[in-house]
Amino acid sequence: HVGIVMGSKSDMPAMEKAAAELSERGILHEVRVMSAHRDPEMVAEYAKNARMRGLRVIIAGAGLSAALPGVVAAHTDLPVIGVPLTSKTSIAGGLDALLSISQMPPGVPVACVGVDNARNAAVLAARILNA
Amino acid sequence: HVGIVMGSKSDMPAMEKAAAELSERGILHEVRVMSAHRDPEMVAEYAKNARMRGLRVIIAGAGLSAALPGVVAAHTDLPVIGVPLTSKTSIAGGLDALLSISQMPPGVPVACVGVDNARNAAVLAARILNA
Amino acid sequence: HVGIVMGSKSDMPAMEKAAAELSERGILHEVRVMSAHRDPEMVAEYAKNARMRGLRVIIAGAGLSAALPGVVAAHTDLPVIGVPLTSKTSIAGGLDALLSISQMPPGVPVACVGVDNARNAAVLAARILNA
Amino acid sequence: HVGIVMGSKSDMPAMEKAAAELSERGILHEVRVMSAHRDPEMVAEYAKNARMRGLRVIIAGAGLSAALPGVVAAHTDLPVIGVPLTSKTSIAGGLDALLSISQMPPGVPVACVGVDNARNAAVLAARILNA
Amino acid sequence: HVGIVMGSKSDMPAMEKAAAELSERGILHEVRVMSAHRDPEMVAEYAKNARMRGLRVIIAGAGLSAALPGVVAAHTDLPVIGVPLTSKTSIAGGLDALLSISQMPPGVPVACVGVDNARNAAVLAARILNA
Amino acid sequence: HVGIVMGSKSDMPAMEKAAAELSERGILHEVRVMSAHRDPEMVAEYAKNARMRGLRVIIAGAGLSAALPGVVAAHTDLPVIGVPLTSKTSIAGGLDALLSISQMPPGVPVACVGVDNARNAAVLAARILNA
Amino acid sequence: HVGIVMGSKSDMPAMEKAAAELSERGILHEVRVMSAHRDPEMVAEYAKNARMRGLRVIIAGAGLSAALPGVVAAHTDLPVIGVPLTSKTSIAGGLDALLSISQMPPGVPVACVGVDNARNAAVLAARILNA
Amino acid sequence: HVGIVMGSKSDMPAMEKAAAELSERGILHEVRVMSAHRDPEMVAEYAKNARMRGLRVIIAGAGLSAALPGVVAAHTDLPVIGVPLTSKTSIAGGLDALLSISQMPPGVPVACVGVDNARNAAVLAARILNA
Repeated sequence: HVGIVMGSKSDMPAMEKAAAELSERGILHEVRVMSAHRDPEMVAEYAKNARMRGLRVIIAGAGLSAALPGVVAAHTDLPVIGVPLTSKTSIAGGLDALLSISQMPPGVPVACVGVDNARNAAVLAARILNA
Repeated sequence: HVGIVMGSKSDMPAMEKAAAELSERGILHEVRVMSAHRDPEMVAEYAKNARMRGLRVIIAGAGLSAALPGVVAAHTDLPVIGVPLTSKTSIAGGLDALLSISQMPPGVPVACVGVDNARNAAVLAARILNA
Repeated sequence: HVGIVMGSKSDMPAMEKAAAELSERGILHEVRVMSAHRDPEMVAEYAKNARMRGLRVIIAGAGLSAALPGVVAAHTDLPVIGVPLTSKTSIAGGLDALLSISQMPPGVPVACVGVDNARNAAVLAARILNA
Repeated sequence: HVGIVMGSKSDMPAMEKAAAELSERGILHEVRVMSAHRDPEMVAEYAKNARMRGLRVIIAGAGLSAALPGVVAAHTDLPVIGVPLTSKTSIAGGLDALLSISQMPPGVPVACVGVDNARNAAVLAARILNA
Repeated sequence: HVGIVMGSKSDMPAMEKAAAELSERGILHEVRVMSAHRDPEMVAEYAKNARMRGLRVIIAGAGLSAALPGVVAAHTDLPVIGVPLTSKTSIAGGLDALLSISQMPPGVPVACVGVDNARNAAVLAARILNA
Repeated sequence: HVGIVMGSKSDMPAMEKAAAELSERGILHEVRVMSAHRDPEMVAEYAKNARMRGLRVIIAGAGLSAALPGVVAAHTDLPVIGVPLTSKTSIAGGLDALLSISQMPPGVPVACVGVDNARNAAVLAARILNA
Repeated sequence: HVGIVMGSKSDMPAMEKAAAELSERGILHEVRVMSAHRDPEMVAEYAKNARMRGLRVIIAGAGLSAALPGVVAAHTDLPVIGVPLTSKTSIAGGLDALLSISQMPPGVPVACVGVDNARNAAVLAARILNA
Repeated sequence: HVGIVMGSKSDMPAMEKAAAELSERGILHEVRVMSAHRDPEMVAEYAKNARMRGLRVIIAGAGLSAALPGVVAAHTDLPVIGVPLTSKTSIAGGLDALLSISQMPPGVPVACVGVDNARNAAVLAARILNA
């Protein structure tokens, strides 16, 4: 199944669209709130145990410096899909999160989708499960 | 196996790194040059037949308006990884291609990686194959 | 006459201004909704048959990665005018669509006008018809 | 035939590609250097007389604040194609010229092509002549 | 005295702040609406006659491609102050107008102030008159 | 006469063009190196005494956060012209300095010219002296 | 204790969050409004006397060209934390202030936090006091 | 003493300037290479033990998505200074790293300095130690 994580409860309205899309496609999923910066241990544990717990794809949404997708990807070898989210203090409509999520260093990729486009993250997860 | 496509022969040096990474990991792949704008039929055919031909992931690199990854994703339901490439006339170091590839409309996602980061596209493809 | 196409019904309010301007000038036109990414065949057919059906200019509006104008231009040798549109998830006020539409690869130009400026697309179409 | 104008002699290497493309297609053209800011009268005269002199399309290349295409378009009702050019003091790889040329006010459109992409301006001119 | 020009009536609320500031300082001024692109002759005449008519500084406000300040500066040797204005279709909060006004070519400067900051244009005009 | 100040000796090659232009026009000027951040007292003194010493315009060049023009303008009521300069660590080709110099708060304007365009600062100074 | 300064009364709602965070942590602080551009002497005095008055960290919030943090840092050797603030005329969601505050010249650093993120400035101040 | 960490050996030339500045000031320091994404455990351990090992400030340099400073800050309550670094595939001259480092979420601040400005990070560290 698919894990959906986000950095803050305030990301829920945006990220729920990923859950809704997966539900519609009959794909099992779970939703967790955990911050790369405030709960780093929890994120590391979640990512490390993900494959063992039966997850096959992780969708991670985050705004601003948006480290969550990358930190998850650092602790698992499952494919990680990153959703850049906007917030009240975003630069240039979410460009900050978009760059943070896409411009990953060599060896630890994140699959970045469009700003606030959690639904597309779910569609991409479905494509991956069905590859 | 994995398909690697790019919009122009001049993209080869950047995109070869994806092929090299896949080779190193023992993952079969093929490399094709085809432009979304100059060879639209070829791209459509390639994407439509990809699953049938045994491809499981497609990596598409393109610069500037960088339509190739999205056009490929429009014609297949396989996961498509997009690599934004820089060129001599890029805006802001490849921001144009990065936005074109990541900001996809609802329902047709592309997994965008970092600018000129074809190697990460290959690592992501490996993660997907191994999901 | 002039063809007006757009990627989504939600683009209609912005694109209707092109139709209104053409009407005011007594220039025949037609309006179609078709997505480069969700209806790629329909777009290809529309563009390929455009000249034969008597179209002389095509105006294409799209937001975000905004591939529609370029895909239309790939399938016809008529002049194609692209209108970058804003949406709720635009980067930097529509910069994403503006770059996607203007930064076309060699050989397949799109005539890009200003963000959300469908009226100017119609004026440009009139100039072309009257050239 | 087609008029090619540019704001400075230093723009010639970039803009010659438009002339070369038109030559290859057997399309008559003329090349002029005139600055919107330093030779405003000459630009106004050129644009006003263009149709009478038999021009059907004008290609105007300019960098930085890049007013030339818009000023030409203000003095003629022929279609004007603008080519944003880079220079040593460009912002963000020519973003300044790209915005100046594309973001025209209501009623006076310029057909903007990609940064330094004079060849595409010529291809667009050919499409217009053949519309 | 000081001339205040703007490209459109819709710029009046923003530009009135310049007039108010000058009034408060007891500096004579006049306000005109004229578009660089729609009324190019009027702008040229206004700028050419400005010194003769007793103007010593011209403040020009414009949005989007914002050619007005530069076109005025091309037709007079008086100091010209440019005010970049935002509009509903501005890129990045007025970055388009800011770049168009500031990035002038060699020999024809415009004194650019902040976005929508017409009051500062008036203060700068007062400094110039008092230099 | 005209004062030319800059934040660092490394700005001299760019700023010398202002001095050369003023020399060519027979306008007296002086050149000083003083940093808003490293020599704040010197900058304040220079600006405060400028009018008394017979200066009528001050040209200030600076890169990066480019505070010098604004700090000078804070300590004098003479017109201050700011020249945004590029350096090895500029963002987006000098966008940082351009924004810092142009986006001044209410009441303390700086006349911003184009990036690295010290010559235009001198031309603007000449226009001001001749207003 | 900690000094909190800001360029304008209108910055108070944003900057109060720093005071609230410090209060919650039991850290003494004072709040002052003073503009780098309109009250340069007051800012210089405040910064110069800060250490003597017992301050150990200064938090400075400012928008637009945002010189305040840098000017404070120029007059003290205490650590200065800068908070980029948005305003109605910000470029790209506060990018102007963010660049002005972070891109300081060699030798005079400012510790820049996120846009409108005064609370984080207070947390950083607490970390510094507790280092 | 001060810890200097960076994400990759290739960051050494840029980050050595921090070490040199600290040496010149007689401040003890250590230098480590560890990637937030490739060595997450090592980074977590380093940050968690930092205070116990006698570190009082940590300087972290990173490019692209630049997660290292934030991840360090997540595992320690010491002040963390982030240095955005440019690389061959930076967007807009390092804007990506600058946004990733500065736009931290509530509660976990990083003190961001200018792009490639490791020396200023060291000066800031000295100010903090001397606060």
